[in-house]
Amino acid sequence: MPHRGWLFDLDGTVYRGEALIPGAAETLAALRAAGRRVAFLSNKPLQTRADYAAKLTRLGVPAAAEDVVNSSLVLARHLATLDPGAPVFVIGEPPLVSELAAHGFEVRADHRVRWVVIAFDRTFDYAKLNTALQAVRQGARLIATNPDRTCPVEGGEIPDCAGMTAAVEAVTGKTVEVIVGKPSPIILEVALGRLGVPARDAVIVGDRIETDIVMGKRLGLGTVLVLSGVTRADDPRVAEIAPDLVLPSIRELIR
Amino acid sequence: MPHRGWLFDLDGTVYRGEALIPGAAETLAALRAAGRRVAFLSNKPLQTRADYAAKLTRLGVPAAAEDVVNSSLVLARHLATLDPGAPVFVIGEPPLVSELAAHGFEVRADHRVRWVVIAFDRTFDYAKLNTALQAVRQGARLIATNPDRTCPVEGGEIPDCAGMTAAVEAVTGKTVEVIVGKPSPIILEVALGRLGVPARDAVIVGDRIETDIVMGKRLGLGTVLVLSGVTRADDPRVAEIAPDLVLPSIRELIR
Repeated sequence: MPHRGWLFDLDGTVYRGEALIPGAAETLAALRAAGRRVAFLSNKPLQTRADYAAKLTRLGVPAAAEDVVNSSLVLARHLATLDPGAPVFVIGEPPLVSELAAHGFEVRADHRVRWVVIAFDRTFDYAKLNTALQAVRQGARLIATNPDRTCPVEGGEIPDCAGMTAAVEAVTGKTVEVIVGKPSPIILEVALGRLGVPARDAVIVGDRIETDIVMGKRLGLGTVLVLSGVTRADDPRVAEIAPDLVLPSIRELIR
Repeated sequence: MPHRGWLFDLDGTVYRGEALIPGAAETLAALRAAGRRVAFLSNKPLQTRADYAAKLTRLGVPAAAEDVVNSSLVLARHLATLDPGAPVFVIGEPPLVSELAAHGFEVRADHRVRWVVIAFDRTFDYAKLNTALQAVRQGARLIATNPDRTCPVEGGEIPDCAGMTAAVEAVTGKTVEVIVGKPSPIILEVALGRLGVPARDAVIVGDRIETDIVMGKRLGLGTVLVLSGVTRADDPRVAEIAPDLVLPSIRELIR
């Protein structure tokens, strides 16, 4: 594929847990050697971009924090366009809180806020749900990092952001206004800006049809579905959505 | 109203928080003196029936545990008809756990269960949500105590069972099979059994249109909406659902 810009999903595409997908290092090195621009694109708000870059580097794919775009960064940037410096309550983990604080938001522990930010949060509890309810009763609005139902982990899956979002929507009777993560065009625009190429000159490589591939198709990127993650070859959506390429893994991109 | 059996909702109908609704004691005493049968019917699984009876007695309405039907009791009885003695995981508080144990269920803290029981749970957290997900991934089924979005408390409202239910449904991708509380006919049948009268000879008195009144209408009871709780006189549903009587409070039942 002749495209200048390449976006790679992380979990299930470049690595699984702590193991690099075989061939990932060689594929990424070959693309870079050929002058292509590469960035990494994840819905996961659980670590900072520097953490993801350090993990990639440790596993054999040298990366800097600026090469990584995740839903924490995109949420902070998007909310900064809607309501800069607003007081916010965060259902999320410390790296997301840090990202919001770094973007100038007033992160509060009580309900006196203009926004409730909802994310994948392994410390979610009833007290946070109640604070979200009280905030919404006083007029706060809802925004979320990502729509994922579960997150794949070694040996299975664990609850992802959809659980927190559903709980807040059910008790408040309000709907989340914006979900910035894949398949939203919001995260893709940030990633393309990072690459410095237009959508038609970019490819997205990922393992999830309903996020990576659907988003790429909608916005006119080249699309490569890899079967090294959550999608099985016999999934009927593979034929329906029709990615440009379907490969066993990213190893085959340079074969 | 000539009916022999009388069912009273509790929160917003007989009391609010720790305060008896003015006239409640006199109304209930007058009904009983006239030979009517009385029982209390609540969706709330947070205390035992004995606790609710003690509270009523303390506030001036003598009651025994057997006079109270709540969603914990009804869930335990209903599940006993579906799958007696099954291993269950409970998203709920200790009184519900006790009720299930008293009905012979094996209450477990892990995901090796046949049912996930979902209730109003002020100790809800991510670990419970994850246990529910792992249980469903291994085939467990879902049942819930009540459908309420929020619970009225002094000065406002707090998240009720709908929050826990929505979170579990969102991450598991499965729907709760049965919700036993109002407006389900399941809880009403238990209550009518307790009164020993058929539906056509019973009245339900409550402050919530979408639970108390809708359920009474569906099953052919007399219905009395009181405006001492969550429903306002100008609510358009009052005209639409058309309770047999609409009163400021239960005081006016005997006026």
